[in-house]
Amino acid sequence: MIEVRPIRPGEGAALLTMVRALAESHGFLDKQTATAEDLERALFAEHPIVGCLLAFVDGKPAGCAFWHRSFTTARGREVIYLEDLSVLPEFRRKGVARALLKDLAGEAKRRGYPSIYWLMKSWNEGARALYAETGAEIEEGLVFCRLADEALTLWAEKAP
Amino acid sequence: MIEVRPIRPGEGAALLTMVRALAESHGFLDKQTATAEDLERALFAEHPIVGCLLAFVDGKPAGCAFWHRSFTTARGREVIYLEDLSVLPEFRRKGVARALLKDLAGEAKRRGYPSIYWLMKSWNEGARALYAETGAEIEEGLVFCRLADEALTLWAEKAP
Repeated sequence: MIEVRPIRPGEGAALLTMVRALAESHGFLDKQTATAEDLERALFAEHPIVGCLLAFVDGKPAGCAFWHRSFTTARGREVIYLEDLSVLPEFRRKGVARALLKDLAGEAKRRGYPSIYWLMKSWNEGARALYAETGAEIEEGLVFCRLADEALTLWAEKAP
Repeated sequence: MIEVRPIRPGEGAALLTMVRALAESHGFLDKQTATAEDLERALFAEHPIVGCLLAFVDGKPAGCAFWHRSFTTARGREVIYLEDLSVLPEFRRKGVARALLKDLAGEAKRRGYPSIYWLMKSWNEGARALYAETGAEIEEGLVFCRLADEALTLWAEKAP
């Protein structure tokens, strides 16, 4: 029995467990420094740019779809970017990710957004099968670039 | 002589020219349906999630860095996502993209954001050289997934 609903105040710790489970599966748990308070502060801000659905299996927190408002210059419209789709290890392969993705599509429709998008690791065959089922277009050959921390400061201050 | 500054109301048409030049270089001009009004509406909204820097060469509009507020669950903080870095063909190879990227880093610092990130086509060697110069971390092997329009509606309404 899978139930999906928006996250509520006080559930940041449960969400953090899921975010950390995804980071562990993807091999970057050492870079995971967010706290439950960080996540709740962003989610329950006055004009939030983020949102989150939680999934429960038999009443137990099992997974999340954490997203943020994004924008496409191709369409000139707001869209949803799915940042983290995570299912706790003990609840995997039960349809939890599928249920979350369906409700996220519903959220996009309610907002009048034309699309949702996300990134997948190319090795993640399980995710690929689910995403193919949704009817998503797939584009290979992208490189992710991140300029952070000291490198960001150095570049901002570099002589022209 | 390159000058970079935030876009002002009334400059949506100049911006659209740049956005369309990038779409043309990347081969998806046929999917480009945004209007100048769409872009200005988002940029000059009450609580905007997007921003844009314009670059001028000898006073002429030459390029743009169109970004949106994003969020990383790894850090639990807002960051900048660079959606479009575009230079009009006649102004390429003059340091315009470099100047835009430097000012965008300054914008992130002013906002107290820890990072900016963006996606690059893996074939884009010119962009790769500039991005390496910034000190950005590079991650290969990502797949972009987009669920849009009728496919989004069908998936949202599909039986569980």
